[in-house]
Amino acid sequence: MTDRKEFRDLSDPDEARDAIASLDLAPDPEEVPLAEARGRVLAERIDADLDVPGFDRASMDGYAVRARDTFGADETDPAVLELAGTVHAGEEPAVEVGEGQAAEISTGAVMPAGADSVVMVERTDERDDGEAVAVRTAVAPGDHVMLAGADVAAGERALGPGTRLTAREIGLLSALGVESVPVRGEPTVGIVSTGDELVRPGDELDSAAGQIYDVNSYTVAAAVAEAGGDPELYPHAGDDYEEMERVLRTAAEECDLVLSSGSTSASAVDVIYEVIEERGELLVHGVAVKPGKPMLVGRLDVSEPRSDGSEDERSESSGDSAYVGLPGYPVSALTIFRTFVAPAIRQAAGVPEPATATVEARMATEERYGEGRMRMMPVGLTETGDEEDDLLAYVVDKGSGATTSLVEADGVVEVPADTAYVAEGETVEVQLFSPDVRPPTVLGVGEDDPALARLLDALDRPRYLSVGSREGLRRLRDGVPDFAVTSGESGDDRGVEATELGSYERDWGLVVSAGNPEGISGLADLADRDLRFVNRGSDSGLRTSLGDALADLADERGVTRHDLVDAIDGFELAAKAHESPARKVAGGQADAGLGLRATAEKLDLGFVPVGTETVRVLANPDRESKPGVRELAAALDDELDAVLSDLAGFGREP
Amino acid sequence: MTDRKEFRDLSDPDEARDAIASLDLAPDPEEVPLAEARGRVLAERIDADLDVPGFDRASMDGYAVRARDTFGADETDPAVLELAGTVHAGEEPAVEVGEGQAAEISTGAVMPAGADSVVMVERTDERDDGEAVAVRTAVAPGDHVMLAGADVAAGERALGPGTRLTAREIGLLSALGVESVPVRGEPTVGIVSTGDELVRPGDELDSAAGQIYDVNSYTVAAAVAEAGGDPELYPHAGDDYEEMERVLRTAAEECDLVLSSGSTSASAVDVIYEVIEERGELLVHGVAVKPGKPMLVGRLDVSEPRSDGSEDERSESSGDSAYVGLPGYPVSALTIFRTFVAPAIRQAAGVPEPATATVEARMATEERYGEGRMRMMPVGLTETGDEEDDLLAYVVDKGSGATTSLVEADGVVEVPADTAYVAEGETVEVQLFSPDVRPPTVLGVGEDDPALARLLDALDRPRYLSVGSREGLRRLRDGVPDFAVTSGESGDDRGVEATELGSYERDWGLVVSAGNPEGISGLADLADRDLRFVNRGSDSGLRTSLGDALADLADERGVTRHDLVDAIDGFELAAKAHESPARKVAGGQADAGLGLRATAEKLDLGFVPVGTETVRVLANPDRESKPGVRELAAALDDELDAVLSDLAGFGREP
Repeated sequence: MTDRKEFRDLSDPDEARDAIASLDLAPDPEEVPLAEARGRVLAERIDADLDVPGFDRASMDGYAVRARDTFGADETDPAVLELAGTVHAGEEPAVEVGEGQAAEISTGAVMPAGADSVVMVERTDERDDGEAVAVRTAVAPGDHVMLAGADVAAGERALGPGTRLTAREIGLLSALGVESVPVRGEPTVGIVSTGDELVRPGDELDSAAGQIYDVNSYTVAAAVAEAGGDPELYPHAGDDYEEMERVLRTAAEECDLVLSSGSTSASAVDVIYEVIEERGELLVHGVAVKPGKPMLVGRLDVSEPRSDGSEDERSESSGDSAYVGLPGYPVSALTIFRTFVAPAIRQAAGVPEPATATVEARMATEERYGEGRMRMMPVGLTETGDEEDDLLAYVVDKGSGATTSLVEADGVVEVPADTAYVAEGETVEVQLFSPDVRPPTVLGVGEDDPALARLLDALDRPRYLSVGSREGLRRLRDGVPDFAVTSGESGDDRGVEATELGSYERDWGLVVSAGNPEGISGLADLADRDLRFVNRGSDSGLRTSLGDALADLADERGVTRHDLVDAIDGFELAAKAHESPARKVAGGQADAGLGLRATAEKLDLGFVPVGTETVRVLANPDRESKPGVRELAAALDDELDAVLSDLAGFGREP
Repeated sequence: MTDRKEFRDLSDPDEARDAIASLDLAPDPEEVPLAEARGRVLAERIDADLDVPGFDRASMDGYAVRARDTFGADETDPAVLELAGTVHAGEEPAVEVGEGQAAEISTGAVMPAGADSVVMVERTDERDDGEAVAVRTAVAPGDHVMLAGADVAAGERALGPGTRLTAREIGLLSALGVESVPVRGEPTVGIVSTGDELVRPGDELDSAAGQIYDVNSYTVAAAVAEAGGDPELYPHAGDDYEEMERVLRTAAEECDLVLSSGSTSASAVDVIYEVIEERGELLVHGVAVKPGKPMLVGRLDVSEPRSDGSEDERSESSGDSAYVGLPGYPVSALTIFRTFVAPAIRQAAGVPEPATATVEARMATEERYGEGRMRMMPVGLTETGDEEDDLLAYVVDKGSGATTSLVEADGVVEVPADTAYVAEGETVEVQLFSPDVRPPTVLGVGEDDPALARLLDALDRPRYLSVGSREGLRRLRDGVPDFAVTSGESGDDRGVEATELGSYERDWGLVVSAGNPEGISGLADLADRDLRFVNRGSDSGLRTSLGDALADLADERGVTRHDLVDAIDGFELAAKAHESPARKVAGGQADAGLGLRATAEKLDLGFVPVGTETVRVLANPDRESKPGVRELAAALDDELDAVLSDLAGFGREP
């Protein structure tokens, strides 16, 4: 192995926070048109420089009068005034109201000279063919008149610096006639994903060459935008020093902050390490937090002027750019970003942390720790339904390399280094991955099944974890999910209390190449002939059904099930999802795969039926009244027939 | 008056909601690039169509081996394997691992043929100058290998329809290599402000002609964007039928929903009424809700194809556009939008109501009602500081014409028509004007003062209501605000319990034209000569100081204060804000105005000193520990001297 930088002197998390806080990410303020100012933050106090309204203004439809002329008037003894003219909104009054006179006036119109009050139209009658008006009430000077400046007076403090501009502040600024407003700049954040194996989504992927799609660039960009920054993507840098230096330098020149996310290959991290040390300063190299140990914090110098002569939008006083290196695994990168980097971006943008960024939850199960470094524990959330805010947090531990953790966890719980365990039922604070994250309306676990996947489309915001029938039942017994789905015999006799919401049947068997060129006729061929088979994992209900069918075959033959299984090439080759074995067959890597008739039909493959098994949807008895569970029950009642009729080999029980 | 449409058959609020719900605002789904998909809502289920990872992948740096070759190896008896080559991430393996062999491998690299597991580099030593490796541990098949499809398997349900795309969903879609995603369309909402008197912010205003800035267009546009719609502003329509019809037709052709906001002039509303009835259908005309009675709900037909031949982005099945007429006053318009229209836009966009859209609060004072229609009561919010979530709601009632209500109220409380009163301390649900609205960190009331306005700039999110010294003290006694500011004697002897946080002095007197051309020398001139004076309101501390000075002068002369005041032309002319009288002088409408030396200097006017008065900042004794109050106290300690030295005639008490 090449020499490797080791993260020996790990900083503690507070040192890393302090280091990031010491960096200057704040761009210069800028002026934006009012129409584009929503969500921005005022850089300066705004004082009114005009009166609102700018004139004495009628606040009712009616007649502008001299109040003195109405004194004593009432329903029985109206004051009759001569009509001097009319004033509409948006015009300069052409009339003056003299003693004994009135002018018809619309709401919002300028008070004509001479008048000091308005009588509502409802308290008047026209007289003499519109030549005069009878006023049936007395008014005081100022009645139904909004004086110039009564709403906002010139010179008044209208809005303070740091004000976030929502609809209402934009309304006040509109009233003041403001065309553009000085706002805090949004820090420009350059994002550099490193690793020779990365391919940008949408481009062609060469899996044989170990290429993978770049997850972090778009994920971190979205998280930067959520935090109030302006993300800028840079081309992937491989682990070549020259290339890395060029990309990082360009990003540093153009941005207030540069984020790299290390590829999973350690050599790229080593190269970054070297570039930062030579072209800037490394403040933190390694943090005592899991995940996130290889986090870097530093500064990139920008000594030379930019070669393209374009204007530098960043603060002129700052000759350098802040730098943070994020871990390569997506969940780790997002976790470290959320905890350490987002607060600094919000601070620079002047944006407060959203009220929805953290929630409280109770731990569904006990968790133990023993590593002596801070742990950022990914958790999923589910509502118990008893009380609206009674959230359960359950640990999602799929390994930090799994991108599915991104959507199966809702956020992380920060567990201090000296915490040995978190008890079941203990209240924890969950930092959501994004402020818009909301717990699912219903949480299901169990068998992977295409009919179920379609049924879920009818629900509002479901989460379903395809952990297999056995593991699903186990979790249902532990009380975390709202429902479990089992197939075949695997759902039986396990002593789990549950309410069956619905059930249906599905044909299973061997998925083979189109036209069944090998002429496979059943399970016996797998044991007797030289065929490559792909199985499902032992948690799958389908695998249990296969096992039962093989046991019957073994009985028939008078051999042990073990002998039979040993003769099947690939019996232990367990593929993850229900379509996976069929896709191996389609790809020519296998002759037969355990699967469903529906899958064979979908992928235009052949099918050798072996049996029919029942899929059951079982509700957690404590959650039957939860809205998401009721919604699922309704979908089973209303949508199931349509879903089943659309899938080959699916149907109601006879 | 011209004939007026009366809103006689008022619909009840639920009928109005149902009418809006019956309109179809939902545009067709669209395809957006992944990089622009943040915040959008998936229109369809997304299934994985590839395995992630796409190959069996090393999940550690180390050596790819055949597990069988390591069986029995330990620290004391390592297995020594021949080094067959190296595999880096992002390259196709050029080696095959045979019996007794190993290949160096990086995290993320493709497992070479023949190998079934990885030994961590930490459990190995190089041997024979890199020709061999000693493995000090046994591994099982699959150890430190992530199998193809183990993260996501092709065919698995990845995300359901209706999923809001945040950073993490974008991460999963990146992993699947998705270039663009089908999302729900954002309804296009046309906004038409009506009224001849409206001028768009930034344009020149002719106040003498009764022009005012258009507040609703940008306010409603911001609120539409907050609700997930795409706002489109149309030119103001006056109250001419032809023009109104043309603007509304154009908007209806281009948008899913058209919103008009009535000007304050009733005639424009009448014209709209007529256009909708002739060119569409009016479903609701008038709703029993205050404010918002003149709300309209209907449909605009779009029968002819568009003249410019451009593509219609709206749903092809819909030949018409939904229409809602909002009231003209900004607070009313925003309230009605928030309550009736925003839910329909969110529904069409597939966006849930933000979790922060409503908050619970306790009523600060009792409120009584007796109108028999639903009331949307604007309230301001303040935290008591006792508990984090203990919010007080106080009624903001400045008249619906006041745009300042937009920023002085935080939201509205819906009071049903049959509710006679809401008790003090009763819990109410406050619908915030925008989900980003947050209660101020500190609420102050009292005297209008330029030093205070600058001090507030140092605070995080303060709210200050310039209600004058007397009213400020009254409110402090009622316990709603956190602090009050008084000036002069007006703050004394009123029996209000308070803690003085700080005080300073300011010079007051008569602001006169630059160079004092009238040669005004003091208050006596106001009574003795023919001068036009402008005063402040009687709640102002400055006015109290003036009154006291005049009383002294009256004593000196042996006349009553009343006689003296009667002789001053304009004594009753009370201007709203502290700069207002000076601005009247600057505008030539007065010879002298009550004001501060600092104001005279700021506006380049002359100043005739009369006295010096003390400004006191008084804290609510129950709120001294509230963070916002502590922040204010700190600003008084740290920033006051700098602020005072910057303002003419301000200083510490001698």
